Amino acid sequence: MTRFECDYTQGAHPRILQRLLETNMDQTSGYGTDEYCERARDLIRRECEADAADVHFLVGGTQTNTTVIAALLRPHQGVLSADTGHIAGHETGAIEAAGHKVLTLPHQDGKITAEQVRRAYEAHENDGAKEHTVQPGMVYISQSTENGTVYTLSELEALSEACRECGLPLFVDGARLGYALAAEGGDVTLADLARLTDVFYIGGTKLGALMGEAVVILNEALKRDFRYLIKQRGGLLAKGRLLGVQFETFFEDGLYFEISRHAVSLAMKLRRGLEELGFGFLHDSPTNQQFPILPDDLLEGLKAKHSFTIWEKVDATHTAVRFCTSWGTTETEVDGLLGDLAALRHAAAGLNGSAV
Amino acid sequence: MTRFECDYTQGAHPRILQRLLETNMDQTSGYGTDEYCERARDLIRRECEADAADVHFLVGGTQTNTTVIAALLRPHQGVLSADTGHIAGHETGAIEAAGHKVLTLPHQDGKITAEQVRRAYEAHENDGAKEHTVQPGMVYISQSTENGTVYTLSELEALSEACRECGLPLFVDGARLGYALAAEGGDVTLADLARLTDVFYIGGTKLGALMGEAVVILNEALKRDFRYLIKQRGGLLAKGRLLGVQFETFFEDGLYFEISRHAVSLAMKLRRGLEELGFGFLHDSPTNQQFPILPDDLLEGLKAKHSFTIWEKVDATHTAVRFCTSWGTTETEVDGLLGDLAALRHAAAGLNGSAV
Amino acid sequence: MTRFECDYTQGAHPRILQRLLETNMDQTSGYGTDEYCERARDLIRRECEADAADVHFLVGGTQTNTTVIAALLRPHQGVLSADTGHIAGHETGAIEAAGHKVLTLPHQDGKITAEQVRRAYEAHENDGAKEHTVQPGMVYISQSTENGTVYTLSELEALSEACRECGLPLFVDGARLGYALAAEGGDVTLADLARLTDVFYIGGTKLGALMGEAVVILNEALKRDFRYLIKQRGGLLAKGRLLGVQFETFFEDGLYFEISRHAVSLAMKLRRGLEELGFGFLHDSPTNQQFPILPDDLLEGLKAKHSFTIWEKVDATHTAVRFCTSWGTTETEVDGLLGDLAALRHAAAGLNGSAV
Amino acid sequence: MTRFECDYTQGAHPRILQRLLETNMDQTSGYGTDEYCERARDLIRRECEADAADVHFLVGGTQTNTTVIAALLRPHQGVLSADTGHIAGHETGAIEAAGHKVLTLPHQDGKITAEQVRRAYEAHENDGAKEHTVQPGMVYISQSTENGTVYTLSELEALSEACRECGLPLFVDGARLGYALAAEGGDVTLADLARLTDVFYIGGTKLGALMGEAVVILNEALKRDFRYLIKQRGGLLAKGRLLGVQFETFFEDGLYFEISRHAVSLAMKLRRGLEELGFGFLHDSPTNQQFPILPDDLLEGLKAKHSFTIWEKVDATHTAVRFCTSWGTTETEVDGLLGDLAALRHAAAGLNGSAV
Repeated sequence: MTRFECDYTQGAHPRILQRLLETNMDQTSGYGTDEYCERARDLIRRECEADAADVHFLVGGTQTNTTVIAALLRPHQGVLSADTGHIAGHETGAIEAAGHKVLTLPHQDGKITAEQVRRAYEAHENDGAKEHTVQPGMVYISQSTENGTVYTLSELEALSEACRECGLPLFVDGARLGYALAAEGGDVTLADLARLTDVFYIGGTKLGALMGEAVVILNEALKRDFRYLIKQRGGLLAKGRLLGVQFETFFEDGLYFEISRHAVSLAMKLRRGLEELGFGFLHDSPTNQQFPILPDDLLEGLKAKHSFTIWEKVDATHTAVRFCTSWGTTETEVDGLLGDLAALRHAAAGLNGSAV
Repeated sequence: MTRFECDYTQGAHPRILQRLLETNMDQTSGYGTDEYCERARDLIRRECEADAADVHFLVGGTQTNTTVIAALLRPHQGVLSADTGHIAGHETGAIEAAGHKVLTLPHQDGKITAEQVRRAYEAHENDGAKEHTVQPGMVYISQSTENGTVYTLSELEALSEACRECGLPLFVDGARLGYALAAEGGDVTLADLARLTDVFYIGGTKLGALMGEAVVILNEALKRDFRYLIKQRGGLLAKGRLLGVQFETFFEDGLYFEISRHAVSLAMKLRRGLEELGFGFLHDSPTNQQFPILPDDLLEGLKAKHSFTIWEKVDATHTAVRFCTSWGTTETEVDGLLGDLAALRHAAAGLNGSAV
Repeated sequence: MTRFECDYTQGAHPRILQRLLETNMDQTSGYGTDEYCERARDLIRRECEADAADVHFLVGGTQTNTTVIAALLRPHQGVLSADTGHIAGHETGAIEAAGHKVLTLPHQDGKITAEQVRRAYEAHENDGAKEHTVQPGMVYISQSTENGTVYTLSELEALSEACRECGLPLFVDGARLGYALAAEGGDVTLADLARLTDVFYIGGTKLGALMGEAVVILNEALKRDFRYLIKQRGGLLAKGRLLGVQFETFFEDGLYFEISRHAVSLAMKLRRGLEELGFGFLHDSPTNQQFPILPDDLLEGLKAKHSFTIWEKVDATHTAVRFCTSWGTTETEVDGLLGDLAALRHAAAGLNGSAV
Repeated sequence: MTRFECDYTQGAHPRILQRLLETNMDQTSGYGTDEYCERARDLIRRECEADAADVHFLVGGTQTNTTVIAALLRPHQGVLSADTGHIAGHETGAIEAAGHKVLTLPHQDGKITAEQVRRAYEAHENDGAKEHTVQPGMVYISQSTENGTVYTLSELEALSEACRECGLPLFVDGARLGYALAAEGGDVTLADLARLTDVFYIGGTKLGALMGEAVVILNEALKRDFRYLIKQRGGLLAKGRLLGVQFETFFEDGLYFEISRHAVSLAMKLRRGLEELGFGFLHDSPTNQQFPILPDDLLEGLKAKHSFTIWEKVDATHTAVRFCTSWGTTETEVDGLLGDLAALRHAAAGLNGSAV
């Protein structure tokens, strides 16, 4: 069985594991105060061209989203998000458990626009009974999005401008940030993110770390006391150096970008192969997640050899599924998947044909 | 510099790291649904002699305490704890952030008694205005405690009986459980814990895992939907198999107990050495944490060669400090610490003597 | 200026105020433990034909909704509600501040159906990643709804059956319950509510009390410790007897129903008058809230003599507004409103005509 | 039976009720936006000599404390309070339910000192692991305190100075503020409170209102969006004018002070009478709460004729109780209480004497 269901089916990129092995017996202080973390922070600040940024390491995405959002909002405020946003649907109400409403906006290809943000802000400000409603207090977007799409630089600049005009901090969930940086046609860099947002994170878990997300804080007010918030939300890893070692390895000579390009490149190969087989797509994704629409009668056969995620029923006889590539995916695996799909389709056609 | 400040100054026990390396390229499903986790669960159930127990893996202690306590309590309830309890003082108000008051009882050697629990319960029940106060809803203890002490089997049985009579679930924070199981004079086993508590956890982070805590749930009501709670609190690790692999390694042939015995044995050697040097102790600890009282004029010299934790000022010229041993501590390091202390004391005596 | 913007523009029904005056100097115990509250509870149980019901008095609607919902749900659960539900849009995120997501369903005339509840429940149960999403834990409806509509007995019976099958407690927000009981064509009684729901409340504030809502709890599990929850949420009024006196007055000889019939009767007169003037309606409401669609060029003139609520823009030249009647509304006031509307329309027609 | 158990055993002061009656049929806008509230705000600003203060009306004390504290603190902060503080012990964990720890300091006569605040602040700032602990974020005191005592002007000035130096907003719970203003020997005015604190409230419920507390906000940051917080916490009364009418009556010609002086004067009479009868006191209170220590053998007889609160057991044969006076207490009632106590003591003495 080859697994394509998500981008975290394997352990860590071998170079990361190797580095953990090499540094294992070093004795360091705890909770992210060690030299590995410090070097990783410096490397990240350099990549982001943001000397004044604060960088913190947390363990996972839900924890990071909750911590950042709880740190930014006052009790009566909510967070604007696409209705497809991870915080809106797939974190078991973590944001609400921290006391805040997720104020959803209808997505377009998994994204929201500057215009939507402005309208939401103005609708609230012009509401005669506004104190009876949740006040928009910040904006959350994902890059790449839950649909595999990416914000272009001009979209992000427009969003950033709208957020600043409305006084709404902009937070980018970068659980899959590497794949967005390497996206076919993508034009947003880490430095752009540092310039245009208040806070974002660089995902490690889904890009070849054992675990870990690096939060980059640009907003001065948010910097204050952020370590307390991490600790309170359970994200201050005792052996924090593990996160430092991994992010140091990611950024000391470009491994993060290399992993991202590898996965996106195989995803594009997969995409073209699927197109050649005549399959359509639910979302037009230039990143490592691909959402082809498959005839239902292929699914059973496919499951026997490959794992994938059922995304949604498209019509009576078709289903959109998700295939993910990652640092560990090989060209052979992609070829195998495409070959099996071709064979299954051929068999199905024959079967249907023979019924004539 | 040799580090004795805590039991998480190094990475993971080499056998654990080796096992992570061996399994790194295996493809598995995520979020703890993989076969490594399943085998680790079976091994833990076997050690606990508790076939019906639910076992879950979380990343760290604060997260685990918050998740368990939030899962057990209704909104108007609080958790009884020693005033020295980790949840009372060192988790940045994580329990309060989940909505619950920590109801502290004065500790004796870091412990609370069955009698204290009964009295607290009855005081509440007999309060004419009880609905104006927080209702005790559960009991939290640590084994070993924050002072390095351990509950004896008879103490734990008495506590368990009191809790059951009062209808209060009993939760044991086992961040350092291995050290308690290996304590000099300790007589509590994993099976005892499974028999006498509603839920406890087996600490990994402080016992040689990269990270990870294994929650063992005996209480039927608490079992229900516990994975939702883990996810909501940010504890459902995407690459959950990492936790499974580590706990499988801990329990497939006794490594967990071996690590614990090693650390406690070196702690006892350190303790006897300190006694021979004439130092007294703040707490009488049979586990891996030792709290000697040192003359203040030794501290600067000691800091140059060893790290340790300043615990509390004892009098005008003395300070209690904490030394921890762990899986990674060597006999040479303990000898080095004792040798340096002897030399520092000798030098100080000479200095003081020469003043005569 | 005559006020039609809501049903709480005046103080209390004179008989209620009179009764507060008569009992003012009586000395009673506090927090709802007095004899007035006890008698009011008995009267309510009698009206509900529910001897075993627990009855509690709280001060206002948001507080009551939050207290009931926080008492019913576990941390990972949310509350199913119409997207027009008061808790979804007009309580400043009070439910989220208590840790819970409001899971909205698209309304039909302000209502949700048994079928929607079943589908939401099943969609969750069949979700392979369900622990990553909020679990539906209860159902919230309003009677009458935010659109002025009412659930019929058969709709309520179907909802109740669906809730019981799915194990979801059913909670009815009765801030305007009296108006629903008196609705034109309404067929649901207090006894029906007690038979078909787990908990509901009988609104006082919007029906002629100074303030106050009476919560009727049928569900045994919810009864336990409910007073603690009221106190924690700030709803345990020190001079609780004030609430008891008001609800005693409401139910000792039918004042509650009399007030409701009075207001609905005037609302029906208003409705027919608006129809005769040729205005359409946004919602088809048989209760005390009426939502006519008015030409925008009438609004300024109308505002000079009557207050009302702007509800929503309907098209480029029309706006839906809300008029409410209450215990204090008089037939003269309704006639005055209709007369002014007729005159304004006439003037506008003339004005428009002269432009030709 | 005469009730002395608390200061809210009766309805409202007759002048307040009369004013509610007179204004009952006026039609006003809701939620505190009416002219009665506006006038009451102006009167309060005038009394406080604080033109720039924001004034809001809430319903009760627990709600007010929770709303103010939730508005002031960030998630990782707690509130410093005497261990006797109402928020620490008698609000069913409302502050914790809003996410914040109450950081208790040992009281002296129900009060805390500037020195205690400074030490708590510095202890936190100097803690090497401070982000693992709750950060003090504000200071809460009660005036008068739960023990009936009052802060003197010099004590309050010192506290205020310490708070400002430490950057900790100072909040005064004035549920019984009138009694403190009228205290024998008290020297703190409303203008002093406005000058020395960030926010305080003027209690109505315990001083002759039906219900209601007036929050006076001096701190600019806290003013922002405070109405949202009130609404979210369930404190925005629909018929807000009821609170405005009551506070207008309190302050238009000094009724608030008159009520306070009346109750304190009778409390002093009671105190001197108890002293003459030879009873000692648990607390030395110059306000309307008195805490005499009574022989246990008098309690049963006393209960038959008067209600009071059992405060605490003092020794094997004595109990401290609480008697409260209020606007409604009469001299006759105080004389009756003293007379009954004298008679009971006499009877007990005879009984005990006959045993000789």
